Amino acid sequence: MEFKEKLAAFRSRIDSAIDQLTPASNTRPSRVHEAMRYSLSAGGKRIRPSLVLASSELFESQVDPLPAAVAVECLHTYTLIHDDLPAIDDSNLRRGLDTCHIRFDEATAILAGDALLTYAFELLAKHYSSEPSLAVELIATLSETAGSQKLIGGQMEDVIGENYSVGETELEYIHLNKTSALIEASLIMGAAIGGANDEERHSISEYGRCIGLGFQIMDDILDATSDSKTMGKTVGADAAANKTTYVSVHGLQESRSRLASLTNRAREICDQLHAPLLKQLATYLNERTN
Amino acid sequence: MEFKEKLAAFRSRIDSAIDQLTPASNTRPSRVHEAMRYSLSAGGKRIRPSLVLASSELFESQVDPLPAAVAVECLHTYTLIHDDLPAIDDSNLRRGLDTCHIRFDEATAILAGDALLTYAFELLAKHYSSEPSLAVELIATLSETAGSQKLIGGQMEDVIGENYSVGETELEYIHLNKTSALIEASLIMGAAIGGANDEERHSISEYGRCIGLGFQIMDDILDATSDSKTMGKTVGADAAANKTTYVSVHGLQESRSRLASLTNRAREICDQLHAPLLKQLATYLNERTN
Repeated sequence: MEFKEKLAAFRSRIDSAIDQLTPASNTRPSRVHEAMRYSLSAGGKRIRPSLVLASSELFESQVDPLPAAVAVECLHTYTLIHDDLPAIDDSNLRRGLDTCHIRFDEATAILAGDALLTYAFELLAKHYSSEPSLAVELIATLSETAGSQKLIGGQMEDVIGENYSVGETELEYIHLNKTSALIEASLIMGAAIGGANDEERHSISEYGRCIGLGFQIMDDILDATSDSKTMGKTVGADAAANKTTYVSVHGLQESRSRLASLTNRAREICDQLHAPLLKQLATYLNERTN
Repeated sequence: MEFKEKLAAFRSRIDSAIDQLTPASNTRPSRVHEAMRYSLSAGGKRIRPSLVLASSELFESQVDPLPAAVAVECLHTYTLIHDDLPAIDDSNLRRGLDTCHIRFDEATAILAGDALLTYAFELLAKHYSSEPSLAVELIATLSETAGSQKLIGGQMEDVIGENYSVGETELEYIHLNKTSALIEASLIMGAAIGGANDEERHSISEYGRCIGLGFQIMDDILDATSDSKTMGKTVGADAAANKTTYVSVHGLQESRSRLASLTNRAREICDQLHAPLLKQLATYLNERTN
């Protein structure tokens, strides 16, 4: 199967698993379930859950990675809903659609985000209960990644950083934690489901950090060079807000060069892992236009 | 040991476990960790974690209930932080102190709440990893209880209900899910840690629903009859907001009578379970003044 077809197949399996594994919109109280489903289906690229599937398929276990993929997407979606809130990034548009608090209201968006975060752990606990050690490992990985010293920590420093200019070190902390950590965790969770050994997990982690940092650098490049129509969200917002980005610190040329070097390293690791799909994915993420 | 001393001893063990098991205030980024600790130590009565300890002590297992008790308190504290936000209940005062978004700011309060919710699951996954089936059961119980069809569902209907008058059925749904569910779950988690059998868990659950509903009725009675100084929060707020409460639907006399009947049933169950401490606790919660 061609790479693009493989990605489309992942996406289709993920979309259908999201539909099957999350509560129906008319579940009481319908308002919060409508909001959860609205944001879950608001046109995401499904990169993180695809990484769970791609990583698990490198190994031989027969354990189903789809519930973990859905858990990761629920968690990712919660971060978008809460980040978009007026008190944080105050974004009205996401992937070309109204953000959750615009489509519904702020109270509903707060609660829908809380519910998606909570549901990520419920999915893992319930769908992997017949493999309790694996379930506990997946929950430990996802909760640590999503926690106050990684994902939320990165977001907190990003919020604080909007009030003054952050330096290169703070920027790396924000990128590593706010964006890269969940990408790396998605791959590690897939590897755990697949039954990878320690050495393989180590390589998968390094690959994850490379494409995770690369992903954030690409976001900053796109914000500086693309237009709102292509991106489906407000762009140029970083510069307008005088926000420190990889591009504002290092310039466009150096940003592109760092991205290329991270992508090359990711591709090398894939050769060692015999992971052609992940190798193509590293290139794909480097070349995306939105 | 006298009942009050026993409760004080629980509280002291819980306070010290919270201090030991949650990240220090100067952990990077300190702002979110300060906020988490501020709200965790803002004078709570520690009822839910005490129920975890009291329930586990009815049985014989040697597994430590304290990490689960702390997880339950982290989860409860997150619900208070998010409920107090301007977009939800807009409360400035809680237990006589500034609420989290007043002491810090709204973005920090949202993130500190998210972090406490996430940390509840991290604590359970990490501290019970040597008993993975128990860990998964505790996480399944807590995530389901905290989720969109229970705790968050109750809060969502409460928010919706502020815009129009809710009926008796809706009020029971809100009380059962918003308040009673986590009280019941605390007891069930303690019983699971203790190694209770199915029949014992069934009794513990019924006890939990009785004291949980009773607890909410008592809250409504106190809001209607007490003063802000005693309660440490704004009272009379329900009536001022024309909010449907147990008292507004059933009147004070009928509310007191239902509370007494729930308490009696809870005490009967304790006799069957040989649980004198839980029996005294049912009476204590019925007689509290704040």
